[in-house]
Amino acid sequence: MPTALITLLTDFGGRDPFVAAMKGVILSIRPKATIVDLTHEIPPHGICEAAFTLKSVYRYFPKGTIHVVVVDPGVGGSRRPLLAVNRRGRFIAPDNGVLSYIYRDEPSTQVYQLNAQKYRLKTYSPTFDGRDLFAPAAAWLSKSIAPEKIGRRVTDYIRFPIPEARRLKKGRLEGQVIHIDRFGNLITNITRMDIEPWLSAGKMPAITIKGRTIKGLKPFYSQAAPGKLSALINNDDHLEIFCYRSSAQLILKNSNDEPVTISWEP
Amino acid sequence: MPTALITLLTDFGGRDPFVAAMKGVILSIRPKATIVDLTHEIPPHGICEAAFTLKSVYRYFPKGTIHVVVVDPGVGGSRRPLLAVNRRGRFIAPDNGVLSYIYRDEPSTQVYQLNAQKYRLKTYSPTFDGRDLFAPAAAWLSKSIAPEKIGRRVTDYIRFPIPEARRLKKGRLEGQVIHIDRFGNLITNITRMDIEPWLSAGKMPAITIKGRTIKGLKPFYSQAAPGKLSALINNDDHLEIFCYRSSAQLILKNSNDEPVTISWEP
Amino acid sequence: MPTALITLLTDFGGRDPFVAAMKGVILSIRPKATIVDLTHEIPPHGICEAAFTLKSVYRYFPKGTIHVVVVDPGVGGSRRPLLAVNRRGRFIAPDNGVLSYIYRDEPSTQVYQLNAQKYRLKTYSPTFDGRDLFAPAAAWLSKSIAPEKIGRRVTDYIRFPIPEARRLKKGRLEGQVIHIDRFGNLITNITRMDIEPWLSAGKMPAITIKGRTIKGLKPFYSQAAPGKLSALINNDDHLEIFCYRSSAQLILKNSNDEPVTISWEP
Repeated sequence: MPTALITLLTDFGGRDPFVAAMKGVILSIRPKATIVDLTHEIPPHGICEAAFTLKSVYRYFPKGTIHVVVVDPGVGGSRRPLLAVNRRGRFIAPDNGVLSYIYRDEPSTQVYQLNAQKYRLKTYSPTFDGRDLFAPAAAWLSKSIAPEKIGRRVTDYIRFPIPEARRLKKGRLEGQVIHIDRFGNLITNITRMDIEPWLSAGKMPAITIKGRTIKGLKPFYSQAAPGKLSALINNDDHLEIFCYRSSAQLILKNSNDEPVTISWEP
Repeated sequence: MPTALITLLTDFGGRDPFVAAMKGVILSIRPKATIVDLTHEIPPHGICEAAFTLKSVYRYFPKGTIHVVVVDPGVGGSRRPLLAVNRRGRFIAPDNGVLSYIYRDEPSTQVYQLNAQKYRLKTYSPTFDGRDLFAPAAAWLSKSIAPEKIGRRVTDYIRFPIPEARRLKKGRLEGQVIHIDRFGNLITNITRMDIEPWLSAGKMPAITIKGRTIKGLKPFYSQAAPGKLSALINNDDHLEIFCYRSSAQLILKNSNDEPVTISWEP
Repeated sequence: MPTALITLLTDFGGRDPFVAAMKGVILSIRPKATIVDLTHEIPPHGICEAAFTLKSVYRYFPKGTIHVVVVDPGVGGSRRPLLAVNRRGRFIAPDNGVLSYIYRDEPSTQVYQLNAQKYRLKTYSPTFDGRDLFAPAAAWLSKSIAPEKIGRRVTDYIRFPIPEARRLKKGRLEGQVIHIDRFGNLITNITRMDIEPWLSAGKMPAITIKGRTIKGLKPFYSQAAPGKLSALINNDDHLEIFCYRSSAQLILKNSNDEPVTISWEP
């Protein structure tokens, strides 16, 4: 039987034993599974945050890894449980848009509606599909079951519009902060691909956020002057605003969703 | 040798390396053990909270799983280290009542006093039995040792009184909030069993908390109107007060230990 | 192939998927690795805190364990990636002093500069060596590679001065609080070794912190009167100031780095 690597991404936090219950269920079905926590600190019901988190990390796992995403405000209702399969991995999640980046970035993705009855625990409760449906489905899937046995193909799954940077005149770009990390770095939705043509042409970006302008990009954090608002292309190919030895978030305050624009200087 | 599945439930939090030290000790004795964290965010010395957490999750683990509970304000003193064994699993914990729900819910439970000398690390310190006694005991136990070899049977272990709902006249019930989860849901000590007879008889519950009354039960969260105080029987068979797309805790404030009553309408 | 036990110690916190990305990389190279989190709650860029955390826990892991430390404000710059090897284990970390206690406590330690090119992921980004260099290096190392193949010996690695207690006249000692744990216990840099001679001679310590004096040592927490400021030698052989059933930190406030002195009474 193949190695079973299963990751968990939820909004369950660390105080309650919700995540542990899911692990108990998985290990009851597949005792030798390796389970990795992506994070459980997604804000409650933060579907967009979970989608972005998954997007930034799934490429680093072995092919065939089973990623289970449980951010599921509609639990128990009519939203369908899905399995998405592509060349990178398998993704089990509620049909609420949390796989939107996967659908966009992996064109080979095929989506199935999980046969919920088959995978439910006998002691099913309609308020905890993470434990009673998604966890057992992941464990059974790890036993080399063909996707067709799991449910029927669907194409009408939910995708939310991914907030992408807008291209304005003269190469100007308008994006926004979409994530703030633990170090107070502001990650924007402006990507390396968005700005590559101007960089290659030798232009220098002028990045404006909250009335402050940052000129140029640094290759890495310690190249910037300590305490000075700076920018770089981060390890996930997004434009990131940072402050070496301090925190851009501390300096700019309340910067979630904040607009960020780039213009170009010769 | 059997699979070794060991869970850890402590009040050690995530900043200090206490949990990691326990894992290092376990893996030194049993390198192939699978270790699962139940949670380490039990409030410091929160014996009741740990007991309730353990109760809500142990059933989801494979039979024979070794659950190690270290919420242990009396560490180093005369409180005994215990091993409780039943058809569901094995439980290693200090004798301070933290296994009270296990004793109540699993009548097959037999309790042993761990032979502390035998299982202690050589470098024993009287301030960290989690690392120096409970972790090695769990690892050694995972190697198919018979319980009789572990210590002597005891029957005078500590049980604390579990706060159960009181039955009043005309089917009225009086309980209390015993846990608030990450989503701000208020979990009460009123259980499905407490109210089943009236529900089966077609009565509608009127649930009162802090002067507010909730009529009827929802089958799951998204069946309730957003923002409205509502109730359901949760995935652990407890009456739970929630607020869809918001937080009952936010609305009701300071609701820990808050009294909750149920009366019945035709 | 030997068992691969790899620990991770970072300042990445739990919300972002940085740790998960490292685990994905490790498991891509060594699918059967066992990965243990030491902690990820080191304060951002807290090199000293990480060094102390590592010091207090590495001895409890099996020999040969690979400890990966990523507290790395200089990521991407000229600071070197190191591998330190001794009879206890292997340590992968940036050359910024985070292994200072290891160098001091394990004289057999030999230090190599990791051949960074060889171990980097192909998709290398200069802002996340944890994922793109340290994680793959750990995974490859777990496959029995000889240290000489990894890089060249270096002796000019960075050590920071470890804050040790100062010996004054008449056996007086002056130290400081170097860590506060989850229970509000104040861990000082005064060690068992520092005070052993006077204890053996039957002297009683008088410990002063913030104008308050504690007389004598307790063997363990519950030996102290509840609510009273007390002291003991903790499980890591450090003098620790505590308050049974309360928190020394709550009572003494802002006590990080606070000076602590010991004098002796007959």
